[in-house]
Parts: sequence; C-alpha cells; structure tokens
Amino acid sequence: MKHHVNFTPGPSQLYFTVADHVRQALKDNIPSISHRSKLFEQISAETTNGLRQLLNIPFSHHIFFTASATEVWERIIQNLVEEKSSHLVNGSFSKRFFEIALQLNKKPEKIEAKEGMGFDDSISFSHNTELIAVTHNETSTGVSLPLDLIYALKEKNNKALMAVDAVSSLPFPDLDFTKLDTVFFSVQKGFGLPAGLGVWIVNEKCIAKADLLMSKGISIGSYHNIPSLKSHAVKNQTPETPNVLGIYLLNRVVHDFLRRGIDTIRKETEYKAAILYRALDQHPLLNAFVQDKKFQSRTVIVADCQQHTERLTNFLQERGLSPGDGYGSFKKTQLRFANFPAHSKEQYELLVDSLGAFSG
Amino acid sequence: MKHHVNFTPGPSQLYFTVADHVRQALKDNIPSISHRSKLFEQISAETTNGLRQLLNIPFSHHIFFTASATEVWERIIQNLVEEKSSHLVNGSFSKRFFEIALQLNKKPEKIEAKEGMGFDDSISFSHNTELIAVTHNETSTGVSLPLDLIYALKEKNNKALMAVDAVSSLPFPDLDFTKLDTVFFSVQKGFGLPAGLGVWIVNEKCIAKADLLMSKGISIGSYHNIPSLKSHAVKNQTPETPNVLGIYLLNRVVHDFLRRGIDTIRKETEYKAAILYRALDQHPLLNAFVQDKKFQSRTVIVADCQQHTERLTNFLQERGLSPGDGYGSFKKTQLRFANFPAHSKEQYELLVDSLGAFSG
Repeated sequence: MKHHVNFTPGPSQLYFTVADHVRQALKDNIPSISHRSKLFEQISAETTNGLRQLLNIPFSHHIFFTASATEVWERIIQNLVEEKSSHLVNGSFSKRFFEIALQLNKKPEKIEAKEGMGFDDSISFSHNTELIAVTHNETSTGVSLPLDLIYALKEKNNKALMAVDAVSSLPFPDLDFTKLDTVFFSVQKGFGLPAGLGVWIVNEKCIAKADLLMSKGISIGSYHNIPSLKSHAVKNQTPETPNVLGIYLLNRVVHDFLRRGIDTIRKETEYKAAILYRALDQHPLLNAFVQDKKFQSRTVIVADCQQHTERLTNFLQERGLSPGDGYGSFKKTQLRFANFPAHSKEQYELLVDSLGAFSG
Repeated sequence: MKHHVNFTPGPSQLYFTVADHVRQALKDNIPSISHRSKLFEQISAETTNGLRQLLNIPFSHHIFFTASATEVWERIIQNLVEEKSSHLVNGSFSKRFFEIALQLNKKPEKIEAKEGMGFDDSISFSHNTELIAVTHNETSTGVSLPLDLIYALKEKNNKALMAVDAVSSLPFPDLDFTKLDTVFFSVQKGFGLPAGLGVWIVNEKCIAKADLLMSKGISIGSYHNIPSLKSHAVKNQTPETPNVLGIYLLNRVVHDFLRRGIDTIRKETEYKAAILYRALDQHPLLNAFVQDKKFQSRTVIVADCQQHTERLTNFLQERGLSPGDGYGSFKKTQLRFANFPAHSKEQYELLVDSLGAFSG
C-alpha cells in the first residue's frame, strides 16, 4: 500500500525514524520487559531527561506519563481544582476541557471567543479561580495563542495555576516553564508517534495543591493522582503497567529531535507555515481561516475552502497528499494541514505547488 | 540479543505472531490512521466481534477499551458504587482494588484470606453492598478462585453487581458471562501483547447503575465514564484517541487464537500447568506455594523455593528460561511462572526438565 503524506492533525504521519525504532524494539524484546525492571527505569529516565533537554523543562517540574492528553484534562481538574477553574474556550478542544470540569462536579467558568479568534489580555477571571486553562493551539480551528498573552494572564492572576494544553503545538513552541504550572501533550501529533501516550508536566505548586485537596478529604483519584504519579516518577516508574513500547519510542524520537536540533526543527516549522499561509493568501479560491496573523497557528494550518473543499480534497489525494478534514461544523468547508516535524520541507513545497495548480 | 523465554506474569512473552503483525501494521500505516476513520471503526468492530466469539461474550454485554486494567479498577468504583463495595482480598492486586475504593471516598469492606489461600461460599457481605469485587486470579500469589464459587456468591447476593478481575487468567477460563456483571483484563498477560491496553466488559445492569449515579448528581468521571464509553462503543469508536496500534494487534491475536481454537489453548494450558505442578510436587527442594489444589491457578504458578530461590533463578537463566520473581515480601523465597498461550508446550517441558535437573 503506497503511503500518502498524511496532513491530518493527529494521529498524523509517523516521524520517519519510527518504523526502524519499532523493529529495533522487537529485536530487543522491549514490549515484554517488566515495567519494574532496571531496563524500564533506564528507558524512562532517558525519556524524561531527553524531554527536559529538548523542551527546556527545569527540575522544578516533574514529568509524568499518562494514557492520553484527554486523560490529563481529567487529572488536572481532579488534582488541581477544588471548585473553580477558568477556561479560555475558542473551539472544540478547549470546550471539552471546560466540560470535563462540569462532569467532575466543579464550578468552572468559560471565557469564549468565536471559532477562528483568539483572546487579548483584557479578559478577567473570577477572583476565586484556582486554575486558568489555556489551549495553546486549538486543533479544531488552527488558532494559536501568543505565549506573551499566556504569560501576561499568569502574571495578572498569579494566585491561580496556569495550565497549558500544548497537544498539537509541542515541540514547536519555546515555552518558558518558569511561568507555567502545568503543561501537557500527546505523542501522536508533533512527536510523530503511534497514539496511546500522554505526557503531563507539573511543578511543585501543583503537587502542593493536590496534597492540599487530599488533606481536605477531597478525592483526587487513585493510581494517577499526583502524589502516586510523583512517588513513582522519582523512581522512573509508573503506578500501573504503562505503554512501555510507547515510552521507548518517545525516547528514541526525542533523541532524534535532539540530534537534528530543536532550533532547526523550529525554523523548518516556521518556513513550512510561511509558505503555506502565503499560498493561501495568494490563492484566488482559498483563504486562511484564521485571518489575524498573531493567532495563526504554525503547527495546524486551517484553509477555508468553501464549496471547493471536496474537489480540493480529491485533487490533493490524487497527488498523494491527504489533507485533514475541517473539524465539526467546518467539515464541508475547511481543510486542516498539520505542520509537524514529520512533515518535510519537500512535502510542504509539493503541497504548496499543488495548491497553486488547483483552479477549482 | 538472544531471547530468553520470559515466564514473568506480565508483561510477559509476546505471542509468537505479534512481531509479524507489528511489521504488517507499519506497512499498512496503521499507527497514523485517524481514530475517527472508517478503517478504525472496522478494526474496532472486528476486535470486539472476535473477543465475543473467543470468550463467548453475549450481546447483553458491551466491550470497552481502556488504557490498563488498573484504570478499570478506578472506573468500576466511580461508575458502579455509590457507597459500599465488598472486596475479596487475598493478595496485592485484590488489595489494590479495595484501596482504590477508599481513595475514591467510598466505604468499601474487605473479606481477607491469607496469601496463598482462597475463599469458600460461607463468606457474607454487608446487606447494603452494591458490588462484589473478585480477583479471579491473584497474580501475586497464584491463587485462582473456582468459577462455581464466584457464581454461587453472585446467586446469594443477587442485588449486588459481580465484578471479576480476570487480568492474568483470560483467555483460559470459560466464563459464564450471564452470571457476571463486569469483567476486565489487560492485554500484556494472557493475550501476549505489548502493554498499554485494557478491555472492560459491562452488562446492562452496569449501564443502568452508572446512569442512576449520574442522575443523583454523583460524578462518575468524564471521558471514560460508562455513558461516554457506551455512546462511542456503539459506533465502534472511543471517546479519546486510543492506543490504535494496541487495538489492531489485539484484533490480530484474537483471530490467531480463534484459528488455533480456544479448546486447544485451554487444553494446552491445563497440560502445561499439570506438568509444572507435578514437577514441584515431586521435587525434593521445591513446592507449590498454593497447596490446596482447588485454588491452584493454571495461568500463574508460584513455586515456593525458600533459600534455593536465587540459585534456581541463575540455574534457569543459564538455560534461557527467565522465571518471574516472587511478589512483594516473597521476592526472595518464591518464583512465579506465567502459563499463557504464548508459552509453548515445548518451553514448559524444557522448564520441567530443568527443574528436575536442579539439585540446589
């Protein structure tokens, strides 16, 4: 089966080294090693050390493994919110984070922006908010919030914890973790890996908050509450039998990224985004859905294609390029293009040329 | 790297077809397909249909995918217990299930037996218990509870839901699902697959109980509560991006088992268990830890090796056979041997011959 280039924003294209790493894992019997073995601890330590180096995560922050970023939404609300969280909602995924707080019987508030729009730093929150939930990159709409905005919101609301969903943006953004309390992502997007693993980064304030809730008799969950995750993470272990193969592969790809250089990856991401946005700007039939340049995501680029959507999809498919559908109500009028490290410059140049050749 | 035969009871040895299935998955680009695609729905449907056929699961029961069996412990307590669950505790894993109920602020009770022992049907529960939690096979001690005991407990306490942890026993036991309300397992034990996937089977009574708790305003979790899992499962989907590769591999191995025949697998399991227990009975230095034959697990066989443990471990390792350590406080005095479909008759015969040759 010939592989198309998969531009769906997750699960997306595998990073080009993954197949070889899987073969090596089978040779080395990785899928059947014990999660209580020294070898697992070593792989786990290499993975978190590699992530620290790649993403510049300070030792004030712990790194935990979960099953998915969806799980982290739930764990953040359970562990870090007694009553009130505040959610910036501008698409389906930021909305889902808010809804999970409702399902866990908290009293969240939402600050909404239209789909395709971002926020500015004039927004304010309830004085008693405990956590501000920000989706750095709305995968459904291709809106990315400027990091300066996120840092400014934290500074103005310093008592609240700042939680950043970086699911479809990392490893691209150069986050200043000293200004963020908790950050999370899943591996099937920017890291180009098979789905089934989430990474949850928390600082000491998060650990203190979970301890506080527990001391009040509030349930913060069981095997994946923060104290349990932390007590295992310090031993490079996990509370449950985790996705060992997934962690092994993350380790390998993180080290591939380190060898390639995070600066190179970031520059290439900028370049690929720039040529695609320019192609959309110049195209007679297509537009970028996000018009305000300061909110245009570099990693998930959404094209407003209106009545041309289906024909453009077929046109690209014939050239071996598989765009992602528009999300939800935009399914028939938009296409989404993931711009992850797995997507090469050459593939983006071919995409841009193909768009240029599309005349409806 | 030469592979030893891995007798650790999970993650255990991969089933012999798994490496080929992984290679095929890479060829067919399975790790990057969308979990909202028709192809994923088809794989998911084939997996649950295959499990129904293999394990004789009736359509009164739904089949859900989770991240681990550890997760299912938490989801069962969240979704099926308002206040009181009753736990048969005879080892580390059954104890952990009980502790999770405590962590979720329920009021569980435990009925305890010594490690290495089982229960009889004279035990009784609080009149208001909502759920009886039974560990069919205690992986820590090698005690298996007779199915007739489990059915009798259900019949005597018919108002309570019967939850069976079948983590380290399936696909061996021929369960009568009409007498069980919920059953779960993880794939890295009897199914010989990489870790990172749990399977949770629930009947309509479980669905009604979760709905009842929700209608009372009790939080039953979010993305992985029963209503959310069910509404996705009827479409052969999952609420979150799941371990797609894990589900694909489970599908392939379930169909391998179907071709081999579940009766053949069960008979071979009986045979392998019989020769190992006989070898332990006849050995001058070794004993079966579980002495009461009706509680002797067929799938996790624990040898009491006392001061010979370390020497026996080395002796077996030199022959390419890796036993599992004893669990917890038994680490220095016991060895555990998984007897899963991945362990061939020839490997068991070699193990038995090697034990026979061990003279301390």
